[in-house]
Amino acid sequence: MTDNEATGAVDHLLTDRVSAVIDRSAYGDWRSIATEDAVSLSYGFPDPALFPGEQLTDAVATVLQEQGDEVLQYGTDSYADHLEDVVEERERDRNIPFDHNDVLLTNGATHAIDTVCRVFLDPGDVILVEEPTFMGALGVFWNFGVEVVGVPVDDEGLDVDALAATLERRRERGEQSPKLLYTIPDFQNPTGTTLAGSRRERVLDLATEHDFVVLEDGAYSDLRFDGEGVPPLAAMDDSGRVVRVGTFSKTIAPGIRLGWLTAPSRIRNAARTVAAGGTNTFTRSIVGRYCAEGHLEDALPELRRAYARKRDRMLDSLTAQMPEGTTWTEPDGGFFVWVDLPEGIDADAMLEDAATRGVTYLPGSLFYSGEGPGNTLRLSYSFVTGDEIAQGIEALGTTVSERL
Amino acid sequence: MTDNEATGAVDHLLTDRVSAVIDRSAYGDWRSIATEDAVSLSYGFPDPALFPGEQLTDAVATVLQEQGDEVLQYGTDSYADHLEDVVEERERDRNIPFDHNDVLLTNGATHAIDTVCRVFLDPGDVILVEEPTFMGALGVFWNFGVEVVGVPVDDEGLDVDALAATLERRRERGEQSPKLLYTIPDFQNPTGTTLAGSRRERVLDLATEHDFVVLEDGAYSDLRFDGEGVPPLAAMDDSGRVVRVGTFSKTIAPGIRLGWLTAPSRIRNAARTVAAGGTNTFTRSIVGRYCAEGHLEDALPELRRAYARKRDRMLDSLTAQMPEGTTWTEPDGGFFVWVDLPEGIDADAMLEDAATRGVTYLPGSLFYSGEGPGNTLRLSYSFVTGDEIAQGIEALGTTVSERL
Repeated sequence: MTDNEATGAVDHLLTDRVSAVIDRSAYGDWRSIATEDAVSLSYGFPDPALFPGEQLTDAVATVLQEQGDEVLQYGTDSYADHLEDVVEERERDRNIPFDHNDVLLTNGATHAIDTVCRVFLDPGDVILVEEPTFMGALGVFWNFGVEVVGVPVDDEGLDVDALAATLERRRERGEQSPKLLYTIPDFQNPTGTTLAGSRRERVLDLATEHDFVVLEDGAYSDLRFDGEGVPPLAAMDDSGRVVRVGTFSKTIAPGIRLGWLTAPSRIRNAARTVAAGGTNTFTRSIVGRYCAEGHLEDALPELRRAYARKRDRMLDSLTAQMPEGTTWTEPDGGFFVWVDLPEGIDADAMLEDAATRGVTYLPGSLFYSGEGPGNTLRLSYSFVTGDEIAQGIEALGTTVSERL
Repeated sequence: MTDNEATGAVDHLLTDRVSAVIDRSAYGDWRSIATEDAVSLSYGFPDPALFPGEQLTDAVATVLQEQGDEVLQYGTDSYADHLEDVVEERERDRNIPFDHNDVLLTNGATHAIDTVCRVFLDPGDVILVEEPTFMGALGVFWNFGVEVVGVPVDDEGLDVDALAATLERRRERGEQSPKLLYTIPDFQNPTGTTLAGSRRERVLDLATEHDFVVLEDGAYSDLRFDGEGVPPLAAMDDSGRVVRVGTFSKTIAPGIRLGWLTAPSRIRNAARTVAAGGTNTFTRSIVGRYCAEGHLEDALPELRRAYARKRDRMLDSLTAQMPEGTTWTEPDGGFFVWVDLPEGIDADAMLEDAATRGVTYLPGSLFYSGEGPGNTLRLSYSFVTGDEIAQGIEALGTTVSERL
C-alpha cells in the first residue's frame, strides 16, 4: 500500500497514540537507505559467518527426536524451561541478586523493552533516554504515547550531571516526574560508549531520590573486548528499582528471537501477565539445548576476538582516512562507532553521495527523539568483513573530505 | 514467589490496569487443576501424535543448510516472507478480499488478539464477547483495563438478537458504544458451536449500525469434520470492519508460536507498528518451507479424520454414561464439547471429586467475564486417546450421577 491509501471504515476507532505513530514509520525510513553496490556500515547485524548453524541443526534434531511431543506443544518443563535456568545462572554470574529478582524469557530484547513499558507506562507519562539512543527503543516508546526526554551522552556514557540537572529542573518547575530511565550502559547503541562505574552509582541514587525505574539494556554486555567489566546497574542496585533486559541476538542469532528481562519478582510477574502470548517453546528448547551443551560459553571468546578485529580495522581505517576535525568513539566492545563530522557537514544530506561513492551509514539524527546534531553518524563494523570496512571507510573519508 | 511476597520499591509505579490484573491470575487457577492420575479432558492441546516432527526436522536442516545466513539473521525475504504468501493464499481461498486487506504474522493467535487490542483499545473502552468465551482472550482483554460485556451463545453460536438488544439498550441509556466484538464463529472455544451464516450477516449489519470492529478468531476454522463450511465474517464483510486472526497451533504445532491477522491494510500497518519486536524469523522460515512442500494441505484430511474419531468417541461415551438431565453440544469440528449438568450441580465444587474418580475438566465459570452458570463444564477430546476419552467420560458420568 502507498502513503496515500484511503482511510478505512474503522480508522477513527484507533487509539490516539496509535493514530499518532502509524504514519511516523521511522523504521521504514532507515531501512530504505541500503543500496546494493555500497558497503553497508548501517546495520547492527551480527556477522552471519559466526552463526552456529551446525550446532543449532544438531540441537533441533536432538530435541525433536527426544522430546518432540513436549517442545512442539504448549508450555513445557523440559528444555524450554531449562533456558530460564541458563539465563538465571548467567545473570547470577553478573552478581544480580536472585533473592528478590526473577527472569522472564521474551521474544527478543525489543519485546522485553515493550513489556516493561506495558507494565509501567500510561499515555502522557514521561521517560528519560540517553541521547543519542537505540532507535528501535524510541519506536517502542512512541507507541505508548509518552513524552521522551533526552539526556546527553559523552565518552563515559550518560552524562549524570545533566541527568541530575534535568530532574532538578523538572522538579522546580513542578513538571511531571519521569517514571523510567532507559539506558544501554555497555557499548551503547549507537555511540559504543560505556557508562563509568561511579556514574552507575549516581544513576541509582537519582532513581531513588526521584522515584523512577531504571530500564537497563544489556544487549551487548557479553561482547567486551578490552578492559575491565563494569558491574551492571542491576547488580549494584539494592532498592529493587532496576529492570535489566538481555538478548541472544548478538551472541547466538537474531532469527531465534529470544531475549529476557530480569526484574524484582513482582514486576516480573506483572510482565509475564501482560507479555501477550508467551515465547516460542520450540526455539526456547533448541537454544536451551545449545546452551546446556556449553556451546554458548565456548563460542564467546571467538565472538569477542572476531568483533574486536573488526573494531580495530574500523578504528585504523578511520585514523588513516578521515580528514582533520573528524572525531569518533573507541568502543571496548559491542558493534558501533559514533562519528562527529566537522561542524557544518550534514550527515543526512551527505548520505546519497556517500552511497554513490560506496558506503552507507545511519545519520545520527535517527537516534534522537527530537532534533539532533546534523554532523553525526553511526557506523557498524559487526556485519561486514575487514576488507569491506576498510573500503567503506575510504569512501566515507573521500565523501567527507570533499565537503571541507 | 508466593501471593504474600513483599511489594517492591516500584510497585506504586505500575499502571492502574496492570495493578488490577497482576493478582487475578486466572491462568494459574485453571492450570493447577491437573492431577497425574486422572484423564485430563481439560486442555485444548492438539494431539502430539499428530505433530509433524520428522518433516519439521527436515525443513530445519534444509533452511539452515541452504540459507542459514538469512534465516538466523534479522528480517529476511527468503522462506520467512514466503510464509506471509502462504497465509495470504490460504485466506484468499476463504474469499477474504485482498484488495483492501493484508496479512501480519504474529507469535501465535493470542499475540494477534493482543495486537488488535493495542490498536483499538484505551482503558475504559467497552468490548463485547461471547459468553462463554476463550479464557485466554479474556485474560488479554483484562490487561487493557476495558469493560467486558458478555452476550450469550446458543446452539447456533452468538445470540444475535441478544446482541442487538444489548446494543440498543446501551444506546438508549446513553452508555459508551462498544469498540470491538470478539467472536470465535467456527467450533467455538469453549462450546464447539458454529455461528450460522444468517447470523454472521446480522453481526456485520450491527457492526456498521453501531460502529464497532469485529475481531473474528478463526483458530479452529481448518478443522471442520462434518457439514458445509460457513464463510468467515471477513469474507462477507465489505465495509472494512473485520479483523480476522488465525494460527498454526492446531494444524501444525503450538510450540512454533505462529499465528496471523488479516485486516484492512491501514489497520494491519498500525498492528505492525505496535506489535513489538517482530516474529521469529527462524520458525517462520521452517514453517514456510514445510508449507511450501505441501505438507500442511497434505496433513489436513488426516487431522480432521483423527479429531472426528475422538469427537465421535466422546459423544458416544456421553450418550452411554451421562445421567438424564445432562445435555451437551455436538460440534462439527474443533476440539471442544460443552456440557450442561442438571440444575443445581456445581461443576466447580464437583471437580475435586471428579479428579479422584479419574477425570478432570474445566468448570464453565472460567469462560465468563463475570458470574456464569455453575452447572456447565468444558470437555476437550483433542489431547487424549479414544480409550482415555471413554474412561474419562465414564468417571464423569459416575461423578454426576452420584449428585442427583
